[in-house]
Amino acid sequence: MLQAVLSKIDAAQEESLEKLFDLVKFQTIATDPAFHPECTACAAWLKAYLESFGAKASLHKTMGQPVLIGRWNEGETKLPHVLFYGHYDVQPVDPLNLWASPPFAPRIGVTARGNKAVFGRGSADDKGQLLTFLEAVRAWINVHGTLPFRLTVLLEGDEEGNSEVLDAFLKEQGAKLKADIAMICDTEMWDDRTPAITTSLRGCISEDVVVTGPRIDLHSGYFGGPARNPLKALAAMIAKLHDAKGKVTVPGFYNGVKPVSKAKLAGWKALKLTEKKMLSGVGLKVSAGEQPYSLPEQLWARPTLEVNGFWGGYMGVGSKTVLPAKAQAKFSMRLVEGQNPLKVRKAFRAYMKAILPADCTISFKSHAGDSSGIAVAEKNPWIAEAAAALKDEWGVKTALVGSGVSIPVVESFRKHQKMESLLVGFARHDDAAHSPNEKYDLESFHRGTRSWARLFGRIAKEMKS
Amino acid sequence: MLQAVLSKIDAAQEESLEKLFDLVKFQTIATDPAFHPECTACAAWLKAYLESFGAKASLHKTMGQPVLIGRWNEGETKLPHVLFYGHYDVQPVDPLNLWASPPFAPRIGVTARGNKAVFGRGSADDKGQLLTFLEAVRAWINVHGTLPFRLTVLLEGDEEGNSEVLDAFLKEQGAKLKADIAMICDTEMWDDRTPAITTSLRGCISEDVVVTGPRIDLHSGYFGGPARNPLKALAAMIAKLHDAKGKVTVPGFYNGVKPVSKAKLAGWKALKLTEKKMLSGVGLKVSAGEQPYSLPEQLWARPTLEVNGFWGGYMGVGSKTVLPAKAQAKFSMRLVEGQNPLKVRKAFRAYMKAILPADCTISFKSHAGDSSGIAVAEKNPWIAEAAAALKDEWGVKTALVGSGVSIPVVESFRKHQKMESLLVGFARHDDAAHSPNEKYDLESFHRGTRSWARLFGRIAKEMKS
Repeated sequence: MLQAVLSKIDAAQEESLEKLFDLVKFQTIATDPAFHPECTACAAWLKAYLESFGAKASLHKTMGQPVLIGRWNEGETKLPHVLFYGHYDVQPVDPLNLWASPPFAPRIGVTARGNKAVFGRGSADDKGQLLTFLEAVRAWINVHGTLPFRLTVLLEGDEEGNSEVLDAFLKEQGAKLKADIAMICDTEMWDDRTPAITTSLRGCISEDVVVTGPRIDLHSGYFGGPARNPLKALAAMIAKLHDAKGKVTVPGFYNGVKPVSKAKLAGWKALKLTEKKMLSGVGLKVSAGEQPYSLPEQLWARPTLEVNGFWGGYMGVGSKTVLPAKAQAKFSMRLVEGQNPLKVRKAFRAYMKAILPADCTISFKSHAGDSSGIAVAEKNPWIAEAAAALKDEWGVKTALVGSGVSIPVVESFRKHQKMESLLVGFARHDDAAHSPNEKYDLESFHRGTRSWARLFGRIAKEMKS
Repeated sequence: MLQAVLSKIDAAQEESLEKLFDLVKFQTIATDPAFHPECTACAAWLKAYLESFGAKASLHKTMGQPVLIGRWNEGETKLPHVLFYGHYDVQPVDPLNLWASPPFAPRIGVTARGNKAVFGRGSADDKGQLLTFLEAVRAWINVHGTLPFRLTVLLEGDEEGNSEVLDAFLKEQGAKLKADIAMICDTEMWDDRTPAITTSLRGCISEDVVVTGPRIDLHSGYFGGPARNPLKALAAMIAKLHDAKGKVTVPGFYNGVKPVSKAKLAGWKALKLTEKKMLSGVGLKVSAGEQPYSLPEQLWARPTLEVNGFWGGYMGVGSKTVLPAKAQAKFSMRLVEGQNPLKVRKAFRAYMKAILPADCTISFKSHAGDSSGIAVAEKNPWIAEAAAALKDEWGVKTALVGSGVSIPVVESFRKHQKMESLLVGFARHDDAAHSPNEKYDLESFHRGTRSWARLFGRIAKEMKS
């Protein structure tokens, strides 16, 4: 069964690329209202595309861009039910002058590392990635007339913007969208040769802090010494947030964090991630992370607290002997499975108040978009099947990795559909997903499609046995 | 002798005010080339003014605005020789919209505390202050035809800008400008009732610092943990610059700082400067200065190290999970007598390098305008005479105070003329010298003039005895 589908995929490479080109041409920058008509048009194109290989498809209004749902084998309740999630919106394109070719005029070119790739905004994130799955479905149906499982495809247009749009939609849909597994193609391979399944994601919360001292800016000649300087106060507070080993000192910060299983640790160790491999490209030599944890643990299993910006006082040319009235900083915390974002925020605020020097006041501001850390149980049979399918295609053992970033829909699926996710992706480290000259390797596109077909083959086999 | 001069001063109040109005009308913002013709015109006006009561006056070209020198009793080498210094340039007027009346249209009004005052840019700093001395000279000469001492008046036009202009001029003049004492009227009274002589000034040096970490800005999802964050690094370095008692931890920072004499300390204690008096107006309650020193010591006798500004990373609306490539800060150090500015700078840089975390680099930038701290020996007979003259006029004991700011000319006089300074001023805390709505109390102007006349009377008496 499978071989015919793989041959079909190989034969249809040109055709698949045409689909990707069509999709990349839509300027789906959902965060800019000027491009909302492009989003609507893109969703309509996708609807017609899904229908062209048998979907029962419908567009749904949301607070943001339309959600497209396509269903195959809807009545076949005995078949395993897969939900596939992708997003058709893309990142903004600024700075435009750094693009070698127009971002929405897709072209095939050669990457800095000598690979052939499709260049264009969204070619990787997420248009190319989501098409690997959908083109595998199309090939399978073209060969066999039907799928060996029930499938619901969910494509949204607000992933790069406000994740609350889809969350509200998923909450409203509830059990109607529950499947046995959600498959998501929005992550990376471990390296050019090694396929990867992402089994944990870090959540994120952010906090803005303002520390005030004197009522007005003061002259350091007249007040320097006795007057409290909020810049110094805030710097000292930031310095107190970590101990000498890089551990966060906020009481309660690590509440709920569980140790990583031995099996997972062994897998991570086998990845042989070194400081040189990870850091030399960005000009660093030694990890500044929490000791004594290994690099994969620091990245995927340990929460962090970072200052992302600070400012205050005189920032212009020359010198000004001012003692300013206030100092500001932006913080974010990456969270792991088990931590409660609300409790972590509360703990952070309580600690910052506790270490606030005399004569200062502090105020906090949160931003929308809290997300929890998530760890997928690795015993999940879908992971085993996917890992085997990927190994079949790529010829090397599939890496089970974590990711330091959050994919909010995974949390929404857990919350509203009681559904776990399987994160398989074919993006590369150099795809420049949020930067100029985004690209998606042709190999990722082609072998990614073949990888999904192999997973479908395993599902089919499983159904028969 | 004195009484006739005081009566003359009282009778000439209107006339004296006219002089001040004439002087304030010149828009002598020397830091803005557009106003250089105003500076030239002002210097010419002052020359004619000095000549109107007998000066032999001359204008001197400099790298900046003209310096005016006026001499009386030039040949009388047996008389004590006084040099009087003042500056005719003023601070810029921005923000103009905060002025209640045009800054260069002087007017008499009432202050927030109910005192009558002349409002206008430079009314206090330094046009009103320098006229107190010159009007006393004019009154004395009008009554007696001559002065009881040799007098050299030196008026410059670059005090608010580049202090190197006058320094170069004084270096070039050398001994030609040496007098027995330099009198300067550019400081404040202790309070509305208490006259003051300033016997120490703090110097100042400034340093800009850039700390870099990764080669490029990083995403905290992918790098948060292992990657060195220069914001955190710089904050920790700032926090290490002081110990828990507010003492600067830079090795060698206090080298050369001498203890304050018991006599001076007793005088400062008698001033009864409290945290409430000093800090409540700016919204603070407790001193954050170096323990266990008293407030006057913290302000006048102890050097400080302050951060005047810092910035780096994301400073916009919302959140951005960036680990930036660099963090920056501006520092300034207030110095006291005995510290060597060059050595302090070297010590600061060495310490910052020593506490720089791994994988970071640091660079420094200095700004022109280093100045040393200066303490005038209080046994100086000029101080005793001036203190007595001030007490005669104001009826309360003269406060001998320090100042946290520097007056660079004092250092230049020491260096190039081997000449000490006597700092007597009648400005008030609320004069807004560098701010909108600058004013000079009429009482300061009138009784300040009378105070100088009383000092002249004491010099005359001294000469006779």
